Amino acid sequence: MSRPLDADSAPPEPAMNRVAQAGLTCPVPAGEADRVQLGHGSGGKLSAALLRERFLPRFGNDVLELLGDAAVIPAPGADLAVSTDSFVVNPLEFPGGNIGHLAVHGTVNDLAMMGAEPQYLAAGFILEEGLSFEVLDRVLDAMSEAAREAGVLVVTGDTKVVERGKADGMFINTTGIGRLDPEFRPDPTRASTGDAVIVSGPIGSHGVAIMAAREDLGFEAELSSDTACLAPLVSALREACGPGVRCLRDPTRGGMASALNEIAASSAVGIRLEEDALPIPGPVRAACEMLGLDPLYVANEGILVAIVSKDRAEEAVQALRSHPVGRSAARIGTVTGERPGLVLLRTGLGASRVVDMLPGDQLPRIC
Amino acid sequence: MSRPLDADSAPPEPAMNRVAQAGLTCPVPAGEADRVQLGHGSGGKLSAALLRERFLPRFGNDVLELLGDAAVIPAPGADLAVSTDSFVVNPLEFPGGNIGHLAVHGTVNDLAMMGAEPQYLAAGFILEEGLSFEVLDRVLDAMSEAAREAGVLVVTGDTKVVERGKADGMFINTTGIGRLDPEFRPDPTRASTGDAVIVSGPIGSHGVAIMAAREDLGFEAELSSDTACLAPLVSALREACGPGVRCLRDPTRGGMASALNEIAASSAVGIRLEEDALPIPGPVRAACEMLGLDPLYVANEGILVAIVSKDRAEEAVQALRSHPVGRSAARIGTVTGERPGLVLLRTGLGASRVVDMLPGDQLPRIC
Repeated sequence: MSRPLDADSAPPEPAMNRVAQAGLTCPVPAGEADRVQLGHGSGGKLSAALLRERFLPRFGNDVLELLGDAAVIPAPGADLAVSTDSFVVNPLEFPGGNIGHLAVHGTVNDLAMMGAEPQYLAAGFILEEGLSFEVLDRVLDAMSEAAREAGVLVVTGDTKVVERGKADGMFINTTGIGRLDPEFRPDPTRASTGDAVIVSGPIGSHGVAIMAAREDLGFEAELSSDTACLAPLVSALREACGPGVRCLRDPTRGGMASALNEIAASSAVGIRLEEDALPIPGPVRAACEMLGLDPLYVANEGILVAIVSKDRAEEAVQALRSHPVGRSAARIGTVTGERPGLVLLRTGLGASRVVDMLPGDQLPRIC
Repeated sequence: MSRPLDADSAPPEPAMNRVAQAGLTCPVPAGEADRVQLGHGSGGKLSAALLRERFLPRFGNDVLELLGDAAVIPAPGADLAVSTDSFVVNPLEFPGGNIGHLAVHGTVNDLAMMGAEPQYLAAGFILEEGLSFEVLDRVLDAMSEAAREAGVLVVTGDTKVVERGKADGMFINTTGIGRLDPEFRPDPTRASTGDAVIVSGPIGSHGVAIMAAREDLGFEAELSSDTACLAPLVSALREACGPGVRCLRDPTRGGMASALNEIAASSAVGIRLEEDALPIPGPVRAACEMLGLDPLYVANEGILVAIVSKDRAEEAVQALRSHPVGRSAARIGTVTGERPGLVLLRTGLGASRVVDMLPGDQLPRIC
């Protein structure tokens, strides 16, 4: 989920959205413009600026500048996909999982979204002095189980410890390596008019579960992260639809809205979503209302959005539903030739509104 | 430098050494045995226990269990070496370099010690809210320059930001990928009686420069980290000695003593060092005396130790000296058949003492 690398994804003049209206953004305090803000890590406009102004000028090269979910590096036999991600979620444990699940799923899913077969993980741990072994063990158990399920080997690792108060429990970095197949390369530039927009499961669960764990909403019991490995869903889609699978994205930081905006921009197409078709669980909707969030901007860690050619749309939904993680898969919209670069949401009453990129900052430390 | 993975390297009953005697170890406070201690990240006995008790049982596989500086993963054409490392050095900037230099050199050098040609880096940044862009820019400049010099491309990255007080300025993780050549595979198991022990440069500079930057010794101006890319030295050695290069190690955490103990144990040989031949700069020696450190246990970030067949020893020293980073290369000892697994230091007076593995903890956060 190398999302801060998506420098091009923020539109030039983003409009306000409900998250911003709800006051949950983090405006830059006066005199702080020469310092790192929380928003620089959020995947929004500030992240894009950080990348564009500071990272790309120094590290720019043909591979990095593709700015995908993972890098493609040439190798004899089969090209490799490589993706890296640091995990700083707070709290470390939450309903439905812990930082260990995220550290495996997040990176493996980024590889899967490139069409790669995830194979190897390297894991780096930064532990805070005083972290209890009980928590560490649960996190390592989660990683071990998640890696086994995903069919990846943890081949190398590193552990550092910093003094009490110099980290927040633990941070994990994982780097994943997967094998690419030239015959199956979904790509955010490949959406075209008439394609179906399909989501593999309920929207908004992860971000809302994290927020509920922090905020004590009163109905946390009904909220649970969706963290899951998406590679089997990609295999199922591939088998059912082959090259009919145009684009794959896991809508993590920035949520469904950002993922679809990126596809719309990269492919220069419009995307029309049907509000009534969006699978948003009741408790997620309720929590979002309490927190002033729009579920379309909330992070997910166990769903994918697929753009699939019209003639394979039904097969795609059925293929996803054949797997437990994809049992709530649904078609939620259509790629159009109208208003290229924009995502429109058609309400039940037939009105439309623009679903922008998140203009400011998102909830910090959800992954 | 995935050194905490070297679970087997700590001898069963390590003796005290000067670092421990000087009170610079961090004994486990009562009631803290079920929590992470600083020493768990030091590369010493506690790190080995953490690895053996918590990581290996959960992630064990054929590749991980080799526990090298980097993992070897099979690939069509040429196997790949993969190494990951997190950098948490304090302070972020120090005489001779900054965390950005370490983040590139540390990982690239681990690949080079496997005989691999470093090719790609993935970089993950965890930034603390409030970090000044001035510092970040200098760190990124250092990484960019170091990557260019090392001939590696930064192909993917990730940035997270945590709240003020939840990290210590910045942490960086890098994962490196390099191409292995079956014709050149130095390995810590390959030392044999009669081989020469050669070091590429002065011992102890990095750790002492970091300590001096923290402690205000009064003669910091004379101390500077040796952080450097070692890949060109490996190329020079390879060209001069081919398969005569038996083992390569960069003596980082744990210093020269740990690197040589690991080789002695892995190859089941003795190693005899000549004290008078050790290239320890005067200021390093003076600082070590003030701080109660033994230079043999102090971390280096820009030297390698090579075990080279007897008949190629002179060529090896000359090859190293042909490169600026290796200009002080020297032969410092010999591999022997006596007392396998032990490293002995012969003093100028002809007496010998055992150079153990570091028993307890080392200086924290030197890389």
